[in-house]
Amino acid sequence: MSLTSPGTPPPPQPPALRVAVLGAGTVGTEVLRLIAQQRGDLAHRIGADLEVVGIAVRDLTRDRGEHAGAELLTEDASELVRTADLVIEVMGGIEPARSLLLDAMAHGASVVTANKALLAQDGASLYEAADIHGVDLYFEAAVAGAIPLVRPVRESLAGDRIQRVLGIVNGTTNYVLDAMTRTGASFDAALASAQELGFAEADPTADVQGHDAAAKASILASLAFHSRVRLSDVHCEGITEVSPLDIAAAARMGRTIKLLSIVERVQDDLGERISARVYPALLPDEHPLASVSEAYNAVFIEADAAGSLMFYGQGAGGAPTASAILGDVVSAARQRVRGGVGPRESRYAELEQVPLDDLRNAFYVSLTVQDRPGVLAEIAGTLSGNGISISTIHQELLEKPEGEGEQALAHIGISTHRALESAMTASLDLFSSTSTVLSIDSVLRIEGV
Amino acid sequence: MSLTSPGTPPPPQPPALRVAVLGAGTVGTEVLRLIAQQRGDLAHRIGADLEVVGIAVRDLTRDRGEHAGAELLTEDASELVRTADLVIEVMGGIEPARSLLLDAMAHGASVVTANKALLAQDGASLYEAADIHGVDLYFEAAVAGAIPLVRPVRESLAGDRIQRVLGIVNGTTNYVLDAMTRTGASFDAALASAQELGFAEADPTADVQGHDAAAKASILASLAFHSRVRLSDVHCEGITEVSPLDIAAAARMGRTIKLLSIVERVQDDLGERISARVYPALLPDEHPLASVSEAYNAVFIEADAAGSLMFYGQGAGGAPTASAILGDVVSAARQRVRGGVGPRESRYAELEQVPLDDLRNAFYVSLTVQDRPGVLAEIAGTLSGNGISISTIHQELLEKPEGEGEQALAHIGISTHRALESAMTASLDLFSSTSTVLSIDSVLRIEGV
Repeated sequence: MSLTSPGTPPPPQPPALRVAVLGAGTVGTEVLRLIAQQRGDLAHRIGADLEVVGIAVRDLTRDRGEHAGAELLTEDASELVRTADLVIEVMGGIEPARSLLLDAMAHGASVVTANKALLAQDGASLYEAADIHGVDLYFEAAVAGAIPLVRPVRESLAGDRIQRVLGIVNGTTNYVLDAMTRTGASFDAALASAQELGFAEADPTADVQGHDAAAKASILASLAFHSRVRLSDVHCEGITEVSPLDIAAAARMGRTIKLLSIVERVQDDLGERISARVYPALLPDEHPLASVSEAYNAVFIEADAAGSLMFYGQGAGGAPTASAILGDVVSAARQRVRGGVGPRESRYAELEQVPLDDLRNAFYVSLTVQDRPGVLAEIAGTLSGNGISISTIHQELLEKPEGEGEQALAHIGISTHRALESAMTASLDLFSSTSTVLSIDSVLRIEGV
Repeated sequence: MSLTSPGTPPPPQPPALRVAVLGAGTVGTEVLRLIAQQRGDLAHRIGADLEVVGIAVRDLTRDRGEHAGAELLTEDASELVRTADLVIEVMGGIEPARSLLLDAMAHGASVVTANKALLAQDGASLYEAADIHGVDLYFEAAVAGAIPLVRPVRESLAGDRIQRVLGIVNGTTNYVLDAMTRTGASFDAALASAQELGFAEADPTADVQGHDAAAKASILASLAFHSRVRLSDVHCEGITEVSPLDIAAAARMGRTIKLLSIVERVQDDLGERISARVYPALLPDEHPLASVSEAYNAVFIEADAAGSLMFYGQGAGGAPTASAILGDVVSAARQRVRGGVGPRESRYAELEQVPLDDLRNAFYVSLTVQDRPGVLAEIAGTLSGNGISISTIHQELLEKPEGEGEQALAHIGISTHRALESAMTASLDLFSSTSTVLSIDSVLRIEGV
C-alpha cells in the first residue's frame, strides 16, 4: 500500500492523556524524567501518549531540571488539576494535597499518589471521591517505594486470606538501627551520620518516631483485612529509646533489633479481630528480615493458601518511588483508554481492632536493680504473679560506685514467653513502685519466634 | 426500615458469575476448596457471587473431594466451557486445553490458566483470541506459583525498564540440587528421594530437563521486554548432568549450583537484543538466590528506576498455586462486574534474540587430563588462544590406576572470566580433539558475579 493512498484514513489515535504533576522535589523530578525518557514506550504500553500539561510548585524560580521546563511550572495547582486526565501527587503533607486531589477527582481526573500520611489519615474521603466520580485512585508508592506490595496485596492475594504482614517499611530507621548494630554507635550518632549521608531528613521525626511506618501499616492493614484502619488505630513506638545496650543484649541472644510494622488477624474468645502496630522488636538473626541492611525494605506476608511470601527492595529514594508511581500511571491511563475502573476501597469485613492490652507478645525487659540476695526471686515473682513466664535471664554486676555508702547495682535482662501486654504493663507498674528496681531501662517485644 | 416495607426494591444484585473448572487434580481440588470456603468473602470482593457450574474431568468415577460434588463433574469439557463466564484451566498439557480455552473465549468467557507449557508454546493465539473476543486472559499461577510475579512485571513495573530477571522458578530441581548440596548425594539418589517425598513427579522429565523453567522464562521474557518470546527461543539445559564433583568443586570456591532462568536485555554493537535461557549455574554463596532452599522459588528483578527487587515464596503445590489462580479469578470477575478489560499482550518492542554464541559468560570447566609436564600450559594456551582468560585453576592428581602401563591422570577445574560462548565452544572442540584431555567432565556458567 502506498503511503499516499487516498481513501484509507490512518487508524484513529486516542488523544494524548493530560498529566498534571503536583510537586517537583526528588520524586517529582524523577517522575518527570521517566515520563520524558520513556515517552515512546509508555505510549505503546498505554495505547495513548502522555502529555505533561503542568507541574505545580511553590517556588517558580527554582530550577527543576531539564524535564520540568519553565513553561510547565505553575503556582496555581487548583487550576491545573481541573484540566488534567491524570494527577500525580508527590507534594506530600495533608493540605493542600487533600483538597487538590478531591478537586481533581471531582473534575474527572484519576489520581496517583505517594502520600502515605494523607491516605492513612483520610483515605476514606479519597476512596469515596474516586467512587462517586468513577475515577481511579492508585498509591503503590505510598507503602514500600519500588517494591510491588499494594498490587500484590489487593489483587494477587485477593482470593486468599492474609493472616499477617510483617515488614521493614521505613528505610531511615532501618539504616539507623543497622548502623547502631554494625558500629555500636548511639542512636544520636547513627542518626547524625544517616543525615549526613542523605538517609535521614533534616527533621527525622516522622521516621524515627515510627509515624511513617505506622501510616504504611494502616494502609496495609486496610487492604489486607478489607477493613478501614486509620493511622490513629495503629499502636506506634519509635526507635529513639533504643540504646547500644539493647543492641548488644540482642546480639548476645542471637537477635537483631528492627523497627517492624505488623498487621495481623487475631482470633480469640471475642472472635476475629485485627491488630496494626509499629515498634522496634528483637528478631532471631536467622529470620530473613534480620539481615535486611541499610535503607532497604522487606515485607513478609503469610496467607492461608499462598503460605509465606517475601518482597524485598528499595523502599524510598527518587527513582524507586518514581518507578512505582509510573506503574500506577500506566494502570490508570490504560483504564482511561480501554474503559473500566481499578480496584475500589474494600472494607466489607469491618473487623474490629484488638486493644494492645489484649495482645500476647514475648518481651525483652532490662532493669537496673539493687544487687542483694532475693532480688531475682522478687522480680521473677512479680512476673509470674502476673502470669508471665521467663524464658532466659541474664545478670551482670555493674561496677561498684565510688562512695562508701553506695549500694551495689546489677543489670538484669529478661526474655519472657508470650504473655498479655496488660500483664507486662502491670508488672512494670510494680517494678516502678519497688525500691529494688532502680530503673526500667527498656521494654522491647520479641517477634518472629 | 422494615424488612417487609413495600415499594422499596432491594438494590439489584448482579447475577452470579458462572465458573467452569477444567481439571480436578491437586490444584483443581484446592481451587474448588478455596472458592467454597471463601464464597462470602469472594462475593464481597468481586461484587457478585461465584457459582461453580461444572468441573471437567477425564474419569467421572474418581472421588474429587467434598467441594467437587458428583453433580458438577462432567466429561464434556467442550459443552461446559461454552456456558461459563469464567474458565479456570488446571488440566495442563497442550491439547485439549488449547482448543477448550480458544472455544471458551470465542463464547465470551474470560480465562484463568496455570498452563505454562501452553502459554510458552502458543500464548500468541490465546492472547489474540482474548483480544478479538474482548475477554481476559490471566496466568499468574503459570510462572512461580503463589509468588506474585506476572502482575508486578506487567503492571507494577509497566512504567520502568526491566534489565534482567534472574530466578529459581522450578521447585523440583531446586529441591534436588539443594539435597545434593546438603548430603553429597548423586543426582539419581536425590531425585529418587524427592520423588518419594512428593517433590518430584513420577515422570520428572519436564522439571529436570529444564523445560518447565524454560516455559516460565519465555513467559517472563515476553512480559518484561514487550516482545514475543517462544519456548523454542529459550536456550535450555537441565540438571541431569550435574555431579557431586561439581557440587563439591562449587563449594570449594564458595559457590552453590542452582538452576537459573535468566532473561535479560543485551546491548552490544548490534543494538539492543534480548536473551532468555535456563541452565544450572554457580552462584556466590552470598548471593540471595544461593540460600533459597528446598522447593522454594525466588526471583530477582533489576530495573532502571526500581533497582533490585526480590520476590520469594512457594512456587508450586496445590494451595499456593490455587492462591495465585484465585487472585486472577477475582481480577477477571471484577472486570465482568464493573466493565473494562485486563492487560493485553504487549509486544510492540519486538526485540530480537541474541544467539547463545554471542553471549559473554563466565565458566567453570572440569577436565580429566594426562598428568604430565606441559598439560596445564597446553590447556591454558588453548583457552587464551580463544580469548578466554582464566580466573582460578584447581588441579588434583587422581589415584594411579592399577595396571603397569596405565598413565597417571589429573582432574583440573578451571574458572574463567567472562568470555564469548562461541569462544568456549571452540575451546571445548579443541579439548575434545587432543589426546591430553581424556574427558570434558562438566561445563557450567558462573552467574551473579
